[in-house]
Amino acid sequence: MRSFDDGLAFILQAKNIAWYENGKVRILDRRIYPIEVRFVECSTHKEVAQAITDMVTQSWGPYFAAGMGMALACHEARSLGVLGFKDFIQQAGKTLYTARPTTSAHMKEIVERCEVAALFAKEAGKDPVVAAFDTCITYYGEIYASCDVMGKYLVEKFPTSGTVMTQCWAETVVGMMLKHCRQENKDIKYICPETRPYFQGARLTASCICDMGFDVTVITDNMPGYVLEKKKVDVFTSAADLICMDGTVVNKVGTFQIALCCDYLSIPYYVNGKPNLAHPDRDSVVIEERDPEFVLQALGQRSVMEGVKGYYPAFDFTPPKLVTGVVTDKGCLDTSELYDYYGSER
Amino acid sequence: MRSFDDGLAFILQAKNIAWYENGKVRILDRRIYPIEVRFVECSTHKEVAQAITDMVTQSWGPYFAAGMGMALACHEARSLGVLGFKDFIQQAGKTLYTARPTTSAHMKEIVERCEVAALFAKEAGKDPVVAAFDTCITYYGEIYASCDVMGKYLVEKFPTSGTVMTQCWAETVVGMMLKHCRQENKDIKYICPETRPYFQGARLTASCICDMGFDVTVITDNMPGYVLEKKKVDVFTSAADLICMDGTVVNKVGTFQIALCCDYLSIPYYVNGKPNLAHPDRDSVVIEERDPEFVLQALGQRSVMEGVKGYYPAFDFTPPKLVTGVVTDKGCLDTSELYDYYGSER
Repeated sequence: MRSFDDGLAFILQAKNIAWYENGKVRILDRRIYPIEVRFVECSTHKEVAQAITDMVTQSWGPYFAAGMGMALACHEARSLGVLGFKDFIQQAGKTLYTARPTTSAHMKEIVERCEVAALFAKEAGKDPVVAAFDTCITYYGEIYASCDVMGKYLVEKFPTSGTVMTQCWAETVVGMMLKHCRQENKDIKYICPETRPYFQGARLTASCICDMGFDVTVITDNMPGYVLEKKKVDVFTSAADLICMDGTVVNKVGTFQIALCCDYLSIPYYVNGKPNLAHPDRDSVVIEERDPEFVLQALGQRSVMEGVKGYYPAFDFTPPKLVTGVVTDKGCLDTSELYDYYGSER
Repeated sequence: MRSFDDGLAFILQAKNIAWYENGKVRILDRRIYPIEVRFVECSTHKEVAQAITDMVTQSWGPYFAAGMGMALACHEARSLGVLGFKDFIQQAGKTLYTARPTTSAHMKEIVERCEVAALFAKEAGKDPVVAAFDTCITYYGEIYASCDVMGKYLVEKFPTSGTVMTQCWAETVVGMMLKHCRQENKDIKYICPETRPYFQGARLTASCICDMGFDVTVITDNMPGYVLEKKKVDVFTSAADLICMDGTVVNKVGTFQIALCCDYLSIPYYVNGKPNLAHPDRDSVVIEERDPEFVLQALGQRSVMEGVKGYYPAFDFTPPKLVTGVVTDKGCLDTSELYDYYGSER
């Protein structure tokens, strides 16, 4: 059973998500983990962008990978003058943050922070690679701390003893949720839909929960409606790829169906994350559609005959009225009060 | 492209579901079809019952297999006197119709018809095997004719041009639906959720629809909620393993979630089948729970780490208020009027 007590846990975790070292970015291949532990190694920021597009990493992974991709871009541009360097890394930043359409607002945030730090270093005659890398590590630390607080607020919504369903893979949010369950002595069993076509729920979420010593049961994605009632699930929770300012949740496809079943069965649904000022509502969101071939296979084996088509939308919209609360690092907010999150920053 | 014009099509189909010949019952293994076409051969009625339990066949398959299993039981009991024969085939019938709990009422119907015919033949000095077999073929013919009429009534609910979603594998209902689409010149595109863990939607329904020359798209089971709206689906339709007299639909797990999404999006849901007098409502229905190992793998490859549990309920309940109409061979009925189906038979 793993411990959360190591203060450097987030650095260890970061190294196993995406990591810049000696002119290369190494990304854990979550398409196959934990069946195999292997890494994709990128020698250019364009290869990093391609890896992000190809789903080598997901959840928070693309944000970290984009940041590490900026360190790599700085390395690629190391012999250019200030102006040429600036052009190069601005272009690289755009290549990186547009690698996945639905979540590009999140990726833009870390990419721009790295860009500013790198340019500042370049102009000051310091190493821009180090500046971009350090910015990225700082960002990791912020996410880690923020998830810790979110995990605490989320677990307050759980019963002392009961059952929680969670969809897809919410990475650090899952780890922090488990940490606070243990700290608060809450006896929670978990149920994870498998999350086709990539099986993130089965491979990543369930593995993580099991690895941390909790009871976890995997079901297929057509079962939540029945299982929520049958297994008396107390709470459904998920992360979000985006939370719009009106409370619309954009998350892994399937979240909407589960949230609708929860609403029907009077089970609360809590989403974790911070609302995104770039997206007032769903109208500004592009739902990423991926290679249809992926839904015509499972773990590499084809499931349909020749001639059958596929369709693969990666996310869906859960309307605000199906969301019980938005758990942020500033507490649990109602979907109608998300601008309050930014307070005077607004 | 296959034709429906052959009057003997139902016999050809029957031969490819379950078939008694020379002391053996041969059952098409739908767990792997169409990736491989292979048959399970049974030498005793107990092996037939085990094959039914093991999901070698599904949809209407278990009913036909149970009937053919009765022909085999008659063969096994061929040297017994009338009383011993009667005991043997009554016990065999029970073994067969209890092989799957949720649909045993349907299996009991065909098994008892075979039993009566076989006993009558035995007493009259005729061959009970032939009597049971012929009863089974007559039953096939009735189902075939009844699905033909149901298909006609169902397609009346489709637009002239549009999109229909269907869940899991409804066998003859699907074939007849397609036949009537063609006869009525309706230009329908189909969308099939894949139906984990056995992929009946991907392997069976989509193959059948594609094979008949229609446009068909497979999605994973977490996508219907999003796709119903995005692809402007006009109608959702499914068969049912049971339709209770109050209109509760018991069908492949996942039907409830899709029906709930349809209700939310104002898309009609039509179920096909006849109401079952043995089941006034869901309280009398046992939802079959299958080997949890099946949800921890896909097409034979394991998807979770050691220690993660699985749970596999095979069916779910869709409440009457989510059902727009029940398409029977006597027309489309409202869930509130299902006793009318039986009229004076009641």
